[in-house]
Amino acid sequence: MKDSQAHLLAYSYDATANFQAMPDLVLSPKNTEDITEIVKICAKEQIPIVPRGSGTNLAAGTVPNQGGIVLLFNNMNKILELDKENLTVTVQPGVITQDLSIYVEQNGLFYPPDPSSMKISTIGGNVSENSGGLRGLKYGVTKDYVKALTFVAPDGEVMKLGGKLAKDVAGYDLMSLLVGAEGTLGVITEITLKLIPLPVTKKTGIAYFNSMEDAAKTVSAIIANRIIPVTLEFMDKGTIGAVEDFMKIGLPREAEAMLLMEQDGNDEQVDEDIQKMIAIAEENGATSAILAASEKEADILKTGRRAALSALSRKRPTTILEDATVPRSEIAKMVKAIQEIAVKYDVQINTFGHAGDGNLHPTCLTDVRDKEEMERVEKALEEIFQVAIELGGTITGEHGVGEMKAPYLEWKLGASGMKLMRNIKQSIDPQNIMNPGKIFAKEMKKRLVIHNG
Amino acid sequence: MKDSQAHLLAYSYDATANFQAMPDLVLSPKNTEDITEIVKICAKEQIPIVPRGSGTNLAAGTVPNQGGIVLLFNNMNKILELDKENLTVTVQPGVITQDLSIYVEQNGLFYPPDPSSMKISTIGGNVSENSGGLRGLKYGVTKDYVKALTFVAPDGEVMKLGGKLAKDVAGYDLMSLLVGAEGTLGVITEITLKLIPLPVTKKTGIAYFNSMEDAAKTVSAIIANRIIPVTLEFMDKGTIGAVEDFMKIGLPREAEAMLLMEQDGNDEQVDEDIQKMIAIAEENGATSAILAASEKEADILKTGRRAALSALSRKRPTTILEDATVPRSEIAKMVKAIQEIAVKYDVQINTFGHAGDGNLHPTCLTDVRDKEEMERVEKALEEIFQVAIELGGTITGEHGVGEMKAPYLEWKLGASGMKLMRNIKQSIDPQNIMNPGKIFAKEMKKRLVIHNG
Ligand SMILES: Cc1cc2nc3c(=O)[nH]c(=O)nc-3n(C[C@H](O)[C@H](O)[C@H](O)COP(=O)(O)OP(=O)(O)OC[C@H]3O[C@@H](n4cnc5c(N)ncnc54)[C@H](O)[C@@H]3O)c2cc1C
Ligand SMILES: Cc1cc2nc3c(=O)[nH]c(=O)nc-3n(C[C@H](O)[C@H](O)[C@H](O)COP(=O)(O)OP(=O)(O)OC[C@H]3O[C@@H](n4cnc5c(N)ncnc54)[C@H](O)[C@@H]3O)c2cc1C
Repeated sequence: MKDSQAHLLAYSYDATANFQAMPDLVLSPKNTEDITEIVKICAKEQIPIVPRGSGTNLAAGTVPNQGGIVLLFNNMNKILELDKENLTVTVQPGVITQDLSIYVEQNGLFYPPDPSSMKISTIGGNVSENSGGLRGLKYGVTKDYVKALTFVAPDGEVMKLGGKLAKDVAGYDLMSLLVGAEGTLGVITEITLKLIPLPVTKKTGIAYFNSMEDAAKTVSAIIANRIIPVTLEFMDKGTIGAVEDFMKIGLPREAEAMLLMEQDGNDEQVDEDIQKMIAIAEENGATSAILAASEKEADILKTGRRAALSALSRKRPTTILEDATVPRSEIAKMVKAIQEIAVKYDVQINTFGHAGDGNLHPTCLTDVRDKEEMERVEKALEEIFQVAIELGGTITGEHGVGEMKAPYLEWKLGASGMKLMRNIKQSIDPQNIMNPGKIFAKEMKKRLVIHNG
Repeated sequence: MKDSQAHLLAYSYDATANFQAMPDLVLSPKNTEDITEIVKICAKEQIPIVPRGSGTNLAAGTVPNQGGIVLLFNNMNKILELDKENLTVTVQPGVITQDLSIYVEQNGLFYPPDPSSMKISTIGGNVSENSGGLRGLKYGVTKDYVKALTFVAPDGEVMKLGGKLAKDVAGYDLMSLLVGAEGTLGVITEITLKLIPLPVTKKTGIAYFNSMEDAAKTVSAIIANRIIPVTLEFMDKGTIGAVEDFMKIGLPREAEAMLLMEQDGNDEQVDEDIQKMIAIAEENGATSAILAASEKEADILKTGRRAALSALSRKRPTTILEDATVPRSEIAKMVKAIQEIAVKYDVQINTFGHAGDGNLHPTCLTDVRDKEEMERVEKALEEIFQVAIELGGTITGEHGVGEMKAPYLEWKLGASGMKLMRNIKQSIDPQNIMNPGKIFAKEMKKRLVIHNG
């Protein structure tokens, strides 16, 4: 029974710690027409609709905090068309990211966005969060690959935006507005994605450092040397240790920081770039910088990096993953500030992330049952958002706002930005039935007065 | 005197044939603060504001068709900062595209969007039209490079969107909404653009064909062979002849179509790709396909292509440049339809464009003084829009909607798309003072009933 308590309970939470609320009903529509009918009824009766892919988002974006219907896409998980002439693939929103990735690679094509959650996450979720991944530095994020969307607006109208077009400037860019809207503007029911040719080859280098600063300097120097690698990921000491505990792949626990550097392309370019990156790491104080001996070794290292969150989350009952993003030039400052903030509030924070994108994931290991500790955790995280903004950054680089970050959004956008966003939401979803309680918070958090981190 | 009749007259028209209207005043503000004050007064008094870069747009986007103030950026034309660590450049909107391009290349960096008008057009105009260029196939269009915008909203509020960030998902993508908004949502006063490393080398190939179909097949085959060249431009027979008349560079007048194929990157890749493209052209029936002998020869050919519009416009008193864009796979069909439509209405249409992007510029040579001919021209162009849409394309790939295409926008977006756009415009500019009469037409044109082209 789809509305049994046990079934409802399964959709009362997502990957976000400490958020939960019961839906009234869970539905698995089969096509756009089903969704149109559902939305029309919800519009008439003012019932909240919470679209849900795999619930791997980390901002409580799929917690039905005002009840209503949770809409699943498990019956809408087909790859509809691969168009080799226009280099596009058209899918239903429930397709699993990794399935799509494998499918197009079997056809010699490439879909670059690869969130660490790609084994479970859906394309509909990726588009709605504008997800990034390990290959973002060179290839961009999900929005750079969305060519067309079909969506059901909050009044039940079906709209098709975009097309298999390289260029289109007919009117406002409504499609970009839907991408990253976290289900607050409509239900996405079909997605056409751009593909690119699969690179011929790739190579992976790895470097260890005695200080986070040296790793950050290496990142800046690589870019300043005009190399745009496909991947520039990093892990700090605590993360290295946790991954090693979890996977036993021989990572050196004594290293303060590790950089994973990958380049793809044709042989000549890849060789040249990877050698240069290794040399740059050495010049910037790496204690060791080497080429992965084989593709297998490279895969193990990447799997290790992808497993960072899971590895850390085994350490304590509750894991809170943050998503502060700063201009690439500010990474060293940001990491240092995070370390100081952790000391200041006496909380355990380890950091890993997409260094090349300036996208850091300070990860707080804690225990929600300990109220006093949780208060310190919250203060620490708030101070991290604040520093990120002061450094020209943002409160979320890829995880979205959802319910969790909604009280902080004004810190980034200001009152006028919030007003603009509210006006747009209001003009598209005047009854506020689409994923209510997300992005727009009832109350904004006040900004801390002084930062001295 | 800034408000002398002669001065006002100079800003009563733009590059679009057959549209003209007098402004009441022309202002050249010096900074964002000046603009804030102007906008506040205009908001109070409900005076239309028409931002104007160099007026090279081809959709009557800068014609002050409801009077009011034309806002120039000739006093806001400074390059403010080159950030080599984050690979960004920050400019005022009045900077000339080519000046920016040369400046960053002198620093070993690359700003790819290169509209044919780049010698005259401004970055503010490029951003507001989301302009494309000859390098769009590989590198995308202007929106792919906009990282941050400062703009003055229609109520005079200054807003900063985005940042020097690789990733940011804090709220709706308001920045993408401003890009391509053609001055209807606010005045852009500062722009931060993403740069990439300057490619090491480039090579240009050229192929001639006895039929447009062979050229189109070549385009498809290049992409199907997983080559993404930087440039794949084409010209038809009439355009080749006109360019040859104009520039005398030795183009073969008897060819039915010409393809300009360029690749950039590292030496190995460039050699491999350009040889493959030449071979593919030969396999697909090229009468001749060769490598440009030198960079100089390549430059001459590219200059020839860039001059296509100027060359054609010398032929008859009035030139109407269209901008139909279709999925790449449909180019052959589209070109054939254009030729048939020209015959059907007995009008002269030559076509050139960004073949790799499916972005065609059917160019109608006519005479506005001949009312009867102009009626046939209008019918022919309407039928071209219709076919483009039927083939999954759009009414404008890069020139925007402006006043000229406004009556046709609904053909592409449908009534629900128009409603959504109107709601957004209304929520941001409730008094409709920002470039009124553009994008949103008073009356939409009815679609033709049957197409049999
Ligand atoms: C271990 C782990 C690693 C992760 N790594 C990354 C990473 O590297 N990069 C990254 O960006 N994120 C990462 N995430 C976050 C998360 O996986 C992504 O946000 C992902 O895109 C969510 O996909 P989902 O299918 O689980 O969507 P859900 O979590 O179910 O939904 C996400 C949002 O999209 C909306 N939504 C879903 N489907 C639709 C639809 N069809 N129409 C309208 N709205 C819809 C929901 O309402 C919700 O607001 C990670 C998460 C975990 C747990
Ligand atoms: C010969 C020729 C070749 C061309 N080739 C191409 C091409 O290859 N690709 C292409 O895409 N286009 C091309 N165009 C069209 C045109 O050059 C582009 O649209 C260009 O971006 C316009 O720049 P501009 O500075 O002249 O802007 P304008 O024409 O002055 O303005 C364009 C629009 O932007 C708005 N605007 C300008 N500045 C601001 C600002 N600061 N804030 C808010 N709104 C603003 C205006 O209101 C208007 O709606 C060509 C035009 C010509 C005449």
